[in-house]
Amino acid sequence: MLIVNTGEGKGKTTAAIGQIIRALGQGFSVCLIQLFKGESFYGEQKILTKLDNLDFFSFAKEHPYCIENVTLQEASEKCKDAFNKLSELSNEPKKYDLVVLEEFNIALRDKFMEKNATIDLIKKLSEKSNVIVTGRGAPQELIAIADLVTEMKEIKHPYNKGVKAQRGIEF
Amino acid sequence: MLIVNTGEGKGKTTAAIGQIIRALGQGFSVCLIQLFKGESFYGEQKILTKLDNLDFFSFAKEHPYCIENVTLQEASEKCKDAFNKLSELSNEPKKYDLVVLEEFNIALRDKFMEKNATIDLIKKLSEKSNVIVTGRGAPQELIAIADLVTEMKEIKHPYNKGVKAQRGIEF
Repeated sequence: MLIVNTGEGKGKTTAAIGQIIRALGQGFSVCLIQLFKGESFYGEQKILTKLDNLDFFSFAKEHPYCIENVTLQEASEKCKDAFNKLSELSNEPKKYDLVVLEEFNIALRDKFMEKNATIDLIKKLSEKSNVIVTGRGAPQELIAIADLVTEMKEIKHPYNKGVKAQRGIEF
Repeated sequence: MLIVNTGEGKGKTTAAIGQIIRALGQGFSVCLIQLFKGESFYGEQKILTKLDNLDFFSFAKEHPYCIENVTLQEASEKCKDAFNKLSELSNEPKKYDLVVLEEFNIALRDKFMEKNATIDLIKKLSEKSNVIVTGRGAPQELIAIADLVTEMKEIKHPYNKGVKAQRGIEF
């Protein structure tokens, strides 16, 4: 099954994290490949790294739009490691019941990964494992092959009133 | 902060679970009050009950629309315990950094809890703790007082193609 969490609203990543917890509770083996997320910054990282049956990989920890002094070229280079990991999982025998590809939609949007090649690998992987892809702006080609697509739609957000991101809620 | 996860799409509960994991990772104390969810059925229950700093309460485990031989009257009676727990948390000094009220929107929709009284308690609680309320059909009165509202919007769902709920994904 191929699941996509997209949209401008909150909940794409937390829903994937919740899905990991649900899957682990059912005895699934899980792999999380995270992009653009600084280490030991997000609260969930501290809990997830302690859980059994979960392999956690983090690549391209800094996105050039968020962190100064990171070039598009550097981000693109680092995303190659994530692409290679995805390629390994797609081409080798099934290792995980669930694979979460966090913020891969952003890597595709920003052309840090080649769209057709990445989507081909995701499709291949989803034929043996459940796969969740998160990030705003999911490409239409990915939506077309997905089984379940949810748009997290922002109805109301405190950022629009100038409230800053809060520890424990946004990270 | 008062957060509402609503809409017909997937991800309302899993996003709340992910939020719990994030909050626990930041050292928050968390309380989860769950409605209409059978024990040891959902994968997340097996993981959450093992985590520190999380108090987990489950009331009205059977919803009459899902489980035969449960009357509306019985569900309504059992929801009183959840209302009383909410009342206790709202009226006593702050005990938790985050309180998750799972499927409370459904209890309000089905009139198992009195709407105005419940929303007053939620508002009071959200003045000292972060509160997340989940469930489709969030009442307008709750949306009006919330800080952050996300609609999980179904773009594509395999149920519409006749696929059954899958272990590790839907429960």
